Amino acid sequence: MTNDELSDLLMRVRALEDERDIARLIASYGPRVDAADAGGAAALWDTDGFYDVEGWRMDGSDGVHRMVSSASHRELVAGGCCHFLGPAVVTVTGDSAIAVCESLVLLRSPDAAAERLPYAGWRHAATEYVVWRATANHFELRRSDGGWQIVGRTSRMLDGNPQAHHLLIAGLAGTALSRGEEQDR
Amino acid sequence: MTNDELSDLLMRVRALEDERDIARLIASYGPRVDAADAGGAAALWDTDGFYDVEGWRMDGSDGVHRMVSSASHRELVAGGCCHFLGPAVVTVTGDSAIAVCESLVLLRSPDAAAERLPYAGWRHAATEYVVWRATANHFELRRSDGGWQIVGRTSRMLDGNPQAHHLLIAGLAGTALSRGEEQDR
Amino acid sequence: MTNDELSDLLMRVRALEDERDIARLIASYGPRVDAADAGGAAALWDTDGFYDVEGWRMDGSDGVHRMVSSASHRELVAGGCCHFLGPAVVTVTGDSAIAVCESLVLLRSPDAAAERLPYAGWRHAATEYVVWRATANHFELRRSDGGWQIVGRTSRMLDGNPQAHHLLIAGLAGTALSRGEEQDR
Repeated sequence: MTNDELSDLLMRVRALEDERDIARLIASYGPRVDAADAGGAAALWDTDGFYDVEGWRMDGSDGVHRMVSSASHRELVAGGCCHFLGPAVVTVTGDSAIAVCESLVLLRSPDAAAERLPYAGWRHAATEYVVWRATANHFELRRSDGGWQIVGRTSRMLDGNPQAHHLLIAGLAGTALSRGEEQDR
Repeated sequence: MTNDELSDLLMRVRALEDERDIARLIASYGPRVDAADAGGAAALWDTDGFYDVEGWRMDGSDGVHRMVSSASHRELVAGGCCHFLGPAVVTVTGDSAIAVCESLVLLRSPDAAAERLPYAGWRHAATEYVVWRATANHFELRRSDGGWQIVGRTSRMLDGNPQAHHLLIAGLAGTALSRGEEQDR
Repeated sequence: MTNDELSDLLMRVRALEDERDIARLIASYGPRVDAADAGGAAALWDTDGFYDVEGWRMDGSDGVHRMVSSASHRELVAGGCCHFLGPAVVTVTGDSAIAVCESLVLLRSPDAAAERLPYAGWRHAATEYVVWRATANHFELRRSDGGWQIVGRTSRMLDGNPQAHHLLIAGLAGTALSRGEEQDR
């Protein structure tokens, strides 16, 4: 193996590891917030990063920490919520990366009717989750000494909003959102 | 490292890359169609491929393009839809591959009752998505000069249809569907 | 390349393969049980493993086989069910591994009202799936001669139960549950 061949192979393995690391980071978001683990969720973000949900902007890992610690989030966790993120499509370019996925948020309904469904299993233990949101998510990430972190996450509901479609297309193309764009609706 | 060892290592890295490429392709389907990106969705298919949904057959990437461009699909996107595909199980054999996953299609309901759930977050912004379909998906893929493409996708709802079960079992075994089988119900 | 560099590279590729194998194993659970493939589902488990759902414990691959073969599970498959597992976060340590993911179980409702949603696509073919459960899953796996297998899976609904939160946090940390803990509610 020549030095060039070896360096090519090492780059390919490094690319697979980067994508694995980023997919893992994104897959851990739901479990973190559904366990009300504010510190763990905040640590996914860069100190100076942001999370923009429908134009509501959380600043930095601190902002994410406050959201997960908030009374309204803890109410959802106590009642039963599930932030379910799908497989991410990741594009790494050097020490930056873009990722995109769709996600659902489900909330447990406190009253599920045993007669709603005809299955013995259901009737034995009727519970029901309502799908509150289905969302497009665009992530910008950066490699730091401690590994990959989110520098920006922009999320828009799939409710016909063209901004949601734009996030998906840009994410698949591996392109960042232009500055300010993430706040627009 | 002997030449045999090196060639074995290169094959293993290549296998990981192939599976990554195919997982990425499948994970990009939902974002493409939910953004009404007909060209992007069509490009996932081989020109001569097919997409058979419940016995309704779209021919080639053109057929997929027409579906995503159709008035009925655009109505769903405008109202709010989410094609949510789960993690795929991929089996690569040379320049062919089989993949299988389950998927959901969710549609936004235009009227969500604020009193349905007791959470402040919900009441502040009540929206609800209905799960329209839960589906078994069997993919056949081929490596071309431009990368992997879908040559066949066969989808059947998980509604007790034995064909759906067969798609799942064949997909996990990494086996193609026999010719004509994909049209049967 | 020195011997040390080569051995490091081989370990990295092996780690990627292990994580791929475990992700694949977990991604195949839903398709196995939704196809009522009792043998295929049971084979994911070690003979001496367990699957603890809400404190109900199935012993070994045999216990999983009995569950998938049971009349109540087959009733769900015949009516239409979807066990939808999200992307797993996997931590491998030698021949052991911990994985965590969230999952949904959906059941088909036999009566979906055509007037519920205003979309032509829906009205043409109204069907609806109810989300029965949203669950935290903690997996313990072991490498055997035939590959990775589940030695323990512990699942708790995301209904405010602190045990579910604990499973998520432990799973993300890559730590096993202490003995007996998996049976507690």
